[in-house]
Amino acid sequence: MYVEVIGTHQQASKEDLKGKFVVVIDTLRATSTIVTALANGCQQVFPVATCNEAKVLSTSWEPDRVLLAAEKRGHSIPGFPLGNSPRTFTPDKVAGKTLFLVTTNGTVALQKAQSASCVVIGALLNGQRVAEYIVEQEPEEVVILCSGTQGRFSLEDIITAGKIIGHIWDHRSASANELAIAAFQLYQVNREQFVPLMAQTAHGQSLLAQGDGDDLNFCLQEDLYPVIPQQTLSRVRLLTG
Amino acid sequence: MYVEVIGTHQQASKEDLKGKFVVVIDTLRATSTIVTALANGCQQVFPVATCNEAKVLSTSWEPDRVLLAAEKRGHSIPGFPLGNSPRTFTPDKVAGKTLFLVTTNGTVALQKAQSASCVVIGALLNGQRVAEYIVEQEPEEVVILCSGTQGRFSLEDIITAGKIIGHIWDHRSASANELAIAAFQLYQVNREQFVPLMAQTAHGQSLLAQGDGDDLNFCLQEDLYPVIPQQTLSRVRLLTG
Repeated sequence: MYVEVIGTHQQASKEDLKGKFVVVIDTLRATSTIVTALANGCQQVFPVATCNEAKVLSTSWEPDRVLLAAEKRGHSIPGFPLGNSPRTFTPDKVAGKTLFLVTTNGTVALQKAQSASCVVIGALLNGQRVAEYIVEQEPEEVVILCSGTQGRFSLEDIITAGKIIGHIWDHRSASANELAIAAFQLYQVNREQFVPLMAQTAHGQSLLAQGDGDDLNFCLQEDLYPVIPQQTLSRVRLLTG
Repeated sequence: MYVEVIGTHQQASKEDLKGKFVVVIDTLRATSTIVTALANGCQQVFPVATCNEAKVLSTSWEPDRVLLAAEKRGHSIPGFPLGNSPRTFTPDKVAGKTLFLVTTNGTVALQKAQSASCVVIGALLNGQRVAEYIVEQEPEEVVILCSGTQGRFSLEDIITAGKIIGHIWDHRSASANELAIAAFQLYQVNREQFVPLMAQTAHGQSLLAQGDGDDLNFCLQEDLYPVIPQQTLSRVRLLTG
């Protein structure tokens, strides 16, 4: 097995991902939100890039089965009952619903990955289960695509990648690129201090400043939801059976 | 002070670097070669992208003062007495010479940095001296531009960046991007094991396979040459005084 970690979605083309087993990560907060919603009974998630796209696409579904979620710079948006805070995707709000989730970085990464043969959604919340699935499936090549933030490397994404690689290496011999080696080391070094580490970063500080510190604590939990969300075309559902 | 580390030259535009204090790193092997040549008495270095460019540009100089160096996949090139192995840039070969050095990743990074206000060449061989210079100069913003390898993150470049950041943080309070924090941690974790770490990587393995293992050992030495090579337009000379 060969594991390649890519640090930002800007560094991957659809061609790079074509036919491969791809794990998409956007730990703060898109993939954590998708994992939480599906674990709490949401039927399926359509990650989309704009509020307009969410509104247009959702009209094909029965209104009482649809849930719209979006956020812009920490503010809620009229017509979108939920924001981008995974803690608010509770069973009473999401069970049985089709969720249209507006995100920026996460959506672009997921759209690029549509050329892959298999796309799994990863976060710290479900990292070990994703790694177990990779070990079970034994693909020849795995690409772990970190979304990053505005074209730049994100620590929380790389640490999530490092958690997944560590579990793979515990069970299979696999070669890896240099960012994968770095990701594994960064996960090991920081695993007892994710929250203080992220509080040093601009992204962590902006979440704290906009009152979303609880989201930081929430998204940095490991293995709360042992689920495997899988994307088929533009739809994400839990893999079952 | 704000320190930004960029993982590959493909992720930086000339615009990003404009007017900034930039450190260019290509530890295996372009910037290690430039540092070694200048420390050993070479008068100036012109890093260029192709052998043809080296030949054409060098005709403006007295032939006995010119030295051409290039390499292609581990093989030497007719008309170019030196390759890309820093150990061969000894005082008897380089003293007083104008060196035209053909490199790929390193040259592109150095050419992009021509829009910067100050461009310094960094490697593990001179990392502390570069960091001391940054501490002395106290620029508002420092960009540490890692060349990377074919568009991908390189561990040896990031570790060199981490060494420089660590020294800055020992002497100044500075904020930093997330890759800078990661670079610092990766330097700390690996500082007693650079050679075994790099021997795990594809790049390290290819150097070993082509018989350049001694270059790996050489380039991974810290602070052998406390010099500050500075690029002005397309020429690199030692900063003196």
